[in-house]
This record gives sequence, C-alpha cells and structure tokens, in this order.
Amino acid sequence: MHIGKVVGTVVATRKDENLTGCKLMITQPLDSFKKPIGDTIIAVDTVGAGIGEIVVYTKGTAARIGANRLDAPIDASIVAIVDNVDVYNDLLE
Amino acid sequence: MHIGKVVGTVVATRKDENLTGCKLMITQPLDSFKKPIGDTIIAVDTVGAGIGEIVVYTKGTAARIGANRLDAPIDASIVAIVDNVDVYNDLLE
Amino acid sequence: MHIGKVVGTVVATRKDENLTGCKLMITQPLDSFKKPIGDTIIAVDTVGAGIGEIVVYTKGTAARIGANRLDAPIDASIVAIVDNVDVYNDLLE
Amino acid sequence: MHIGKVVGTVVATRKDENLTGCKLMITQPLDSFKKPIGDTIIAVDTVGAGIGEIVVYTKGTAARIGANRLDAPIDASIVAIVDNVDVYNDLLE
Amino acid sequence: MHIGKVVGTVVATRKDENLTGCKLMITQPLDSFKKPIGDTIIAVDTVGAGIGEIVVYTKGTAARIGANRLDAPIDASIVAIVDNVDVYNDLLE
Repeated sequence: MHIGKVVGTVVATRKDENLTGCKLMITQPLDSFKKPIGDTIIAVDTVGAGIGEIVVYTKGTAARIGANRLDAPIDASIVAIVDNVDVYNDLLE
Repeated sequence: MHIGKVVGTVVATRKDENLTGCKLMITQPLDSFKKPIGDTIIAVDTVGAGIGEIVVYTKGTAARIGANRLDAPIDASIVAIVDNVDVYNDLLE
Repeated sequence: MHIGKVVGTVVATRKDENLTGCKLMITQPLDSFKKPIGDTIIAVDTVGAGIGEIVVYTKGTAARIGANRLDAPIDASIVAIVDNVDVYNDLLE
Repeated sequence: MHIGKVVGTVVATRKDENLTGCKLMITQPLDSFKKPIGDTIIAVDTVGAGIGEIVVYTKGTAARIGANRLDAPIDASIVAIVDNVDVYNDLLE
Repeated sequence: MHIGKVVGTVVATRKDENLTGCKLMITQPLDSFKKPIGDTIIAVDTVGAGIGEIVVYTKGTAARIGANRLDAPIDASIVAIVDNVDVYNDLLE
C-alpha cells in the first residue's frame, strides 16, 4: 500500500455500471514525509475520506476487495485514513 | 485508475479471437491538469469513448471486468468518460 | 496492452515444463510513433508473429489467457499483429 | 520479492475492517548492498519484523497469501527477516 | 518475462512457512545485450539455476505457478536457464 493525499475528484456520468456510486478520488502519492511523489492516480474511496486527508491506498485485486466490489473495474482504492506516520529518519540513510 | 485521452486506434486483423470486436484505443495518460505524462498505452473501449475524449482507464484484471470479457487477453480498458476533474491545487504543494 | 516490435528470440533448453513449445520473443516496447521506449521484455508468441513485426502484447494474467495456458508461468504474451496505428498528433500536445 | 528496511509505522484508526490487527510498516526498498532505492511503501508485517530490521517483502496477491488474509485489501507484506545477503559483486558488472 | 543474471542469495531463517525450501536468488535484470538494467530483485529458483547463470524470470501469479506453490507468498521466480539470446540489432533502431 502507499500513503497519499486526496486532492480532488473526477465526475463521470457515462461509466461502467459497476462504478455507480463509487467516489473517484484524485489521490497524490506521498513519501513518508508527506511530500508529493510522482503523478496522481484515481482511487475509489471506501472509508469516507475527504478532500485534503492523508490516506492509505491499495492497488490491484486488493482494491476491489477493499471496495467490496469484486465485479467492478477498480484497480485502486482508499482503505484507511492516516492518523499518524512515525518514521525513524536515521534509518533512511 | 488513471485519467487519459484517446488519441488514436490500433488496427489488427490477425489477433487473439477473444479480442474480436474490441476497439483498441491508443490512450495517452494525463495528470490531473490533463497534461500528458509518460507513454501511450492500448486500452479496450467499453463505454463508447471517441477520439479526443478524456477518459478513466483501469488496468489488470479490472480491465477484463470492465470489458465484461474475463476470457480475453485484455490488461487495460476504458471504463468512464470524464465530465469534470476537480483538483484543489493548493493541496498538491 | 502495449505496442512492440519483435526483435529476437530466447533459446532455453532447461525450463519450466509448461513452457515447452512456447516461443519466447524478445519484444521492444514502442511508442505510438513506433519509436523504441524502455527495455525489451520477453513475451510468448500466440499469433504467429515473426521477427521484425509490430505487435500488441499484454501482461499479467491476461498473458496466460492469450497463450491459452493458465498453468504456465507466463507474464507477457503477444496477442495481435498490428496492421496500422492511427494517431492524431495534435491530440498529444 | 524485494529487500527492504522497516523504517516506521502508520497509525490509522478509520480503516477497512479487514485490516484490523494488521501492522502497517513503512518499508524502504534497498538494493542488494542495502542502500535505499526509490520511495517507501507500506507493507503488512507477517513475521514479527521490528523497526530497523532488513526484510523481504512481496507484492500483489502474494502479499495477501503471506498475510494469510485473502479477504483483506493488502497489496504488500513482509514475509521474511533477512539474516544475510550474499552478493557476488563481480557478477554485477 | 525478463532476462536476468543470478548474482547472489538471501538467507532468512525467520520467514513465511510456505517459503521453506525456496531458494531466494538475487537476480539482476539484464537488457537483451546482457547489460544490467535497474535494481536487483529476489526470485525463487525453480529450475536449478546457479550463481552467475543467465535466466528468464517471471513475476506475479505466474511466479507462483512456476514455483508450483500457489499458496506461497512468491511474486517472482526463475523459470528458465538461457542458452542463447538472438537479437537483430538493426531492428532496435
């Protein structure tokens, strides 16, 4: 899984019927210091994440498991809202 | 999932029989500001996407689910047409 | 899926028994203008692709589906031979 | 699989119920000389790994197998604690 | 699949019980000219590959199929030993 920040939403009227009701959140991957890394992805919210929140997202089949929608074309979903990230900086060197 | 733009098509007569009838769309990945990022991929259209449209595509097993063709060798498919992308720019910093 | 060009073959006598009879093609990923991008991969041919041909390859479980060998350790396969790639250049800007 | 070092933890109260009890470890990928490469990921501990330990982690469906939680939205898990890495340097040239 | 060279081993006493007996080989990805590309990975040997040998490795579910251990947390395995790589250099330009 990865840490990310919810930075926006995608609105799509014409879509796969199994995505109906899914909130498509634009999610910015973050490093362990909460700095942006790489490009945003679209993840389906499964835990009530709001704009600006730091979250954990998962990819692949795990994303459909998290969304409890095994028959939906989902490859990324938000599965936790982060309270705290504890990193031991000296271990990163 | 990712945001992309349909920029072309691939024509292939000799192909896996389970790809018959699939529209192979050349899709350019976009960032949340709709700027191109990285190289194009080929995604199967499942929602009637046309050339130039901004779409959401999905990868892996999710792509076969979206195409409703679990027995086809598909690893990317277009599953939504984007009406709007709402990004909170200040959150990206 | 991605566009690629078959640029060689791998010969391997000692291998997984479920790869017996599989043609292991060295495949160079291409962008939509047929220029090489990134490093070559090994994909199993499933459509009679020859050296120098432009093809579509797929990855992951889709590759085993394309090869019709769900019990083989295949993670990439060639599933179509490209007749034509139509790209609208102005859409890429 | 990849070699990594456990450098921290993520605390998340609101999360997928199938993540309850999972320890979310911030894991720094390492090269074979134990130097950091790329960005940290979040992997679920399955072998009692502690902060600072060198581990082997796995991704995708393998991660859920390692965690023995096929119904949890896990896409990375720690499956071994490294005693030793033996690399033949001259082979890397 | 990809071409790689076995450059070392990982020793791990504390590990997932389904990894017992698996040889964890440090494998350096190679391009089609057998030059190193990118960082090493850990792949489970399934064909008796030795240190220094050029191999084909596979990733994801294919790796568990190759290892014949669908219940092990394996995401990469060595499935062939390379006798020869035939590349048509002029096709790479």
